[in-house]
Amino acid sequence: MARWGGRARPAMQVPGPSVREAASMYGTAVAVFLVILVAALQGSAPAESPFPFHIPLDPEGTLELSWNVSYVQETVYFQLLVRELKAGVLFGMSDRGELENADLVVLWTDRDGAYFGDAWSDQKGQVHLDSQQDYQLLRAQRTPEGLYLLFKRPFGTCDPNDYLIEDGTVHLVYGLLEEPLQSLEAINTSSLHTGLQRVQLLKPNISQPALPVDTHTMEIRAPDVLIPGQVTTYWCHITELPDGFPRHHIVMYEPIVTEGNEALVHHMEVFQCAAEVESVPHFSGPCDSKMKPERLNYCRHVLAAWALGAKAFYYPEEAGLAFGGPGSSRFLRLEVHYHNPLVIRGRRDSSGIRLYYTAALRRFDAGIMELGLAYTPVMAIPPQETAFVLTGYCTDKCTQLALPPSGIHIFASQLHTHLTGRKVVTVLARDGREREIVNRDSHYSPHFQEIRMLKKVVSVHPGDVLITSCTYNTEDRRLATVGGFGILEEMCVNYVHYYPQTQLELCKSAADPGFLRKYFHLVNRFNSEEVCTCPQASVPEQFASVPWNSFSRDVLKALYGFAPISVHCNKSSAVRFQGEWNRQPLPEIVSRLEEPTPHCPASRAQSPAGPTVLSIGGGKG
Amino acid sequence: MARWGGRARPAMQVPGPSVREAASMYGTAVAVFLVILVAALQGSAPAESPFPFHIPLDPEGTLELSWNVSYVQETVYFQLLVRELKAGVLFGMSDRGELENADLVVLWTDRDGAYFGDAWSDQKGQVHLDSQQDYQLLRAQRTPEGLYLLFKRPFGTCDPNDYLIEDGTVHLVYGLLEEPLQSLEAINTSSLHTGLQRVQLLKPNISQPALPVDTHTMEIRAPDVLIPGQVTTYWCHITELPDGFPRHHIVMYEPIVTEGNEALVHHMEVFQCAAEVESVPHFSGPCDSKMKPERLNYCRHVLAAWALGAKAFYYPEEAGLAFGGPGSSRFLRLEVHYHNPLVIRGRRDSSGIRLYYTAALRRFDAGIMELGLAYTPVMAIPPQETAFVLTGYCTDKCTQLALPPSGIHIFASQLHTHLTGRKVVTVLARDGREREIVNRDSHYSPHFQEIRMLKKVVSVHPGDVLITSCTYNTEDRRLATVGGFGILEEMCVNYVHYYPQTQLELCKSAADPGFLRKYFHLVNRFNSEEVCTCPQASVPEQFASVPWNSFSRDVLKALYGFAPISVHCNKSSAVRFQGEWNRQPLPEIVSRLEEPTPHCPASRAQSPAGPTVLSIGGGKG
Repeated sequence: MARWGGRARPAMQVPGPSVREAASMYGTAVAVFLVILVAALQGSAPAESPFPFHIPLDPEGTLELSWNVSYVQETVYFQLLVRELKAGVLFGMSDRGELENADLVVLWTDRDGAYFGDAWSDQKGQVHLDSQQDYQLLRAQRTPEGLYLLFKRPFGTCDPNDYLIEDGTVHLVYGLLEEPLQSLEAINTSSLHTGLQRVQLLKPNISQPALPVDTHTMEIRAPDVLIPGQVTTYWCHITELPDGFPRHHIVMYEPIVTEGNEALVHHMEVFQCAAEVESVPHFSGPCDSKMKPERLNYCRHVLAAWALGAKAFYYPEEAGLAFGGPGSSRFLRLEVHYHNPLVIRGRRDSSGIRLYYTAALRRFDAGIMELGLAYTPVMAIPPQETAFVLTGYCTDKCTQLALPPSGIHIFASQLHTHLTGRKVVTVLARDGREREIVNRDSHYSPHFQEIRMLKKVVSVHPGDVLITSCTYNTEDRRLATVGGFGILEEMCVNYVHYYPQTQLELCKSAADPGFLRKYFHLVNRFNSEEVCTCPQASVPEQFASVPWNSFSRDVLKALYGFAPISVHCNKSSAVRFQGEWNRQPLPEIVSRLEEPTPHCPASRAQSPAGPTVLSIGGGKG
Repeated sequence: MARWGGRARPAMQVPGPSVREAASMYGTAVAVFLVILVAALQGSAPAESPFPFHIPLDPEGTLELSWNVSYVQETVYFQLLVRELKAGVLFGMSDRGELENADLVVLWTDRDGAYFGDAWSDQKGQVHLDSQQDYQLLRAQRTPEGLYLLFKRPFGTCDPNDYLIEDGTVHLVYGLLEEPLQSLEAINTSSLHTGLQRVQLLKPNISQPALPVDTHTMEIRAPDVLIPGQVTTYWCHITELPDGFPRHHIVMYEPIVTEGNEALVHHMEVFQCAAEVESVPHFSGPCDSKMKPERLNYCRHVLAAWALGAKAFYYPEEAGLAFGGPGSSRFLRLEVHYHNPLVIRGRRDSSGIRLYYTAALRRFDAGIMELGLAYTPVMAIPPQETAFVLTGYCTDKCTQLALPPSGIHIFASQLHTHLTGRKVVTVLARDGREREIVNRDSHYSPHFQEIRMLKKVVSVHPGDVLITSCTYNTEDRRLATVGGFGILEEMCVNYVHYYPQTQLELCKSAADPGFLRKYFHLVNRFNSEEVCTCPQASVPEQFASVPWNSFSRDVLKALYGFAPISVHCNKSSAVRFQGEWNRQPLPEIVSRLEEPTPHCPASRAQSPAGPTVLSIGGGKG
């Protein structure tokens, strides 16, 4: 029986010879070829290159993933550390973190040996060997810490059963094999210890600007928090800037995570309180505590945000985020999200964020602008929808009025919806043509909202249109989900970070309420007067009484794609720019950006046709 | 400069060594591998197997294609005969026969040699070498007739840029290279002599039932027709059965094409005239001639239909198509479609169809039933649509009433639309679930309507639902296209051939006219009273006045997906089965058939990574 001994041995080079499980007409030729190939690859693979990104996969820290991205090769290099290997491990990716329909690599053992193979799970969780081996093992190495597996995967494989690695959130999944198996096909993911971890796999490859010489640091931490023995805790902690702290620019910030708690600290944000609030009590406790002072609700201006897997956040060298000085609150709120699925008790934590700031103000103030849908029940999602799309517009008229002639430069973005959000994208259009993606997350999760640096700064000029679309899943809802602030209502927002700062704080839209009234009327006409269209009924009440059939659903979609819009082109959330903003024409888009077709890896002809035999510990127990 | 000599030489085995045009990290390893591979393939390829299917590609007969299909390997084997090769030839497939976005094999020459490679053309017609070589050359052979190229292609390649070979019509394209080229990339299809040929590539693999011993034959031919010097001619020719010809079963028919005219005779049909018409004049001339007797319009009952590329049509051994005897007309109309794009003059033709019939009637009469949409303007397609779908239903209520308890068996199908039809599919549903495809053509052309044997007989039981959907392209239309008989109106019909014959001749539907009135009213309400809803306006008039915007288009789609239907469940086109057929519920389908995902060829890892060098004539002028 194959086992890995606990004792350290020198690093061993793998793979050895290849075997094909499937019958092959050209088995010998392929095997010969594979050996040549592996030799070639071992020469060319960046085996010694560092892995700049790290994340624990499971809450116990048994599995630790490091990775690096080659944009030239369109390939991700993974290094998986398995600390206490029993009979094997599954690792992979799936649409939303489910273990069914997942794209997997499996390290497994039978009574004779150990194998590494590219596999996939079907919709029942049954694991199958992939006919095309796209995960390629580069090295396996035993160390005192555990087994290191080094392997690579192209972003796209052109295998329709494979996961396409895209920008935005990737749901990593894992599973642990406790016992050796007769074959790979004996695995069903439903019977394993499994889990998921969300991460931005394709981190941007941007150089970090040098920090100014007079950079100071400030740690915003909640000291010595006893992490509550519950799955989810949002911890709120108030600190304040020194009295008379003058205006500075934040130029960088980075997480400080207490050692040992890496798998528990899920995300952290630093908010500045509103200048109008004179003083804020020094509260430190769960954000949903009944003891929490009311005034903490006025601390919502984001200064810094970090989420699991993210590294330091650098402002572009021409810009910094202003804080301190007159007209700005001295009070800061740190919010730490502890994710404690194993309900570990007694763990103490002092995590937080370290701000790097300078008094030598940079050329530009950075700003944050809110794009997407206005918070109004006019925008609603019928129940039982798997992928309903709502779209908000920042119109040419608003950008014409509010942006400087030289435009603004968006360098980072944070996407936001409530619980039913599944995808978010913002596209820039000019002269009726979509030009570029500002930010897109096709595997968006409301539980993983990080500020992301854009791979490429997007410049927005007066007259440009910014179109933000969110896709929602309301399969678990019985009634329509309307837009609004409540957690059971929905939002569609992209907070874009840009410079130079302008007066435009919010550029969003919603369908014209008059057209929605026409909609309720026509649904009524087609459905024998079931809908209450009496004028005293509120929009949520009217939505609640719509009989949801294919016609009322399709016509609502058609309405949102046709009705004129109310545009919110605001200096602050209350003050609109001057002009007529009601019943504005929906921006007309005559040409859409094409979906990028994944490049089929050129090296496809060189991938092995079956699993790889590992030469460590096989058959010697 | 590479040239092929005109003199015959013995067959030469190809390919020789491989070259890669693209730079490769592993060039040497791949080349070595390729040689091994080619050697292996030459052993396994069915080089000696016959090619049962043949078609001329161009009207001059310069290119002749033969092919065979391996359903086990999911591969088509092609043999292309190039009679007068100059500098090369392009052959391939595209969505609708265009030379842009086509999937191609190219045989080309430069000053040094000749090459065979898998390529594709972009949307501007520019040719590129494919990174994945899926067309695989098996042999090239020079003969007195010309150059024979033998190659194969899997149905699906999993390369998103490649054409997927599916059931139904395939648009084959070709081009002739006149001069040697510096490189493949020098080709733009717009500058070549090119053309297209439609064919059912994936012919069914069904065994031909033995013919009865007392089979007789009858040739229905238009003797000695002088093919008119015009591109399109439909020739009509009336013949009659012998006086007192008793009832027989047609058990098979096959085309008789005059030698030399293979590229001109596009399709032929034999119709029986209506029994009510006592006698029909012996006309022989163009069907659109002013001299054509009015009574020929009553000759529309199909007895036999053949189109280019089709072979003999065999009835299943338990069934035959009745003709002759009392209650059936003695008069037959042969219609021959001559397609003469080069306007060749003076060519004479005596093509027709040979019927094989028997007096020993088989167990079952075969019947023909019409599925799809009723001919009514209620079903309409907005203008400027690229893929608008209309659906007609044969409901459970109708099949319950009209089919025998043991059901009927559909063995062949002929799809029919007018000019804007692009796709047609009929699906069988039972208990709200789609069960099987009766017939599907995703590259349907109204110019290529053949009767096709089904790969698998489909049994329809009482209570089953048959759903026929047609996809239309009205990009070139300015007004809505309504349903109807006119050539500029549309139809959506599947003529299914089945046994045992029943009284049900027509099982179709259309949306309820009352709901269409509601539609016109609501479009009116949303568009400031532009639509004429006055009761005296006809449906086509009302459609003509609809302002076509995204809302009126989307709501019409929603209406067709929601409104109750009028069902035509008829014994003959005039007589309905008894029952209530108006305002019937739209059949509810809770589970759809999944689109088949193409199998990625297992041999992918073995395909060459670049073009193949041919060893014939290269560099020796």
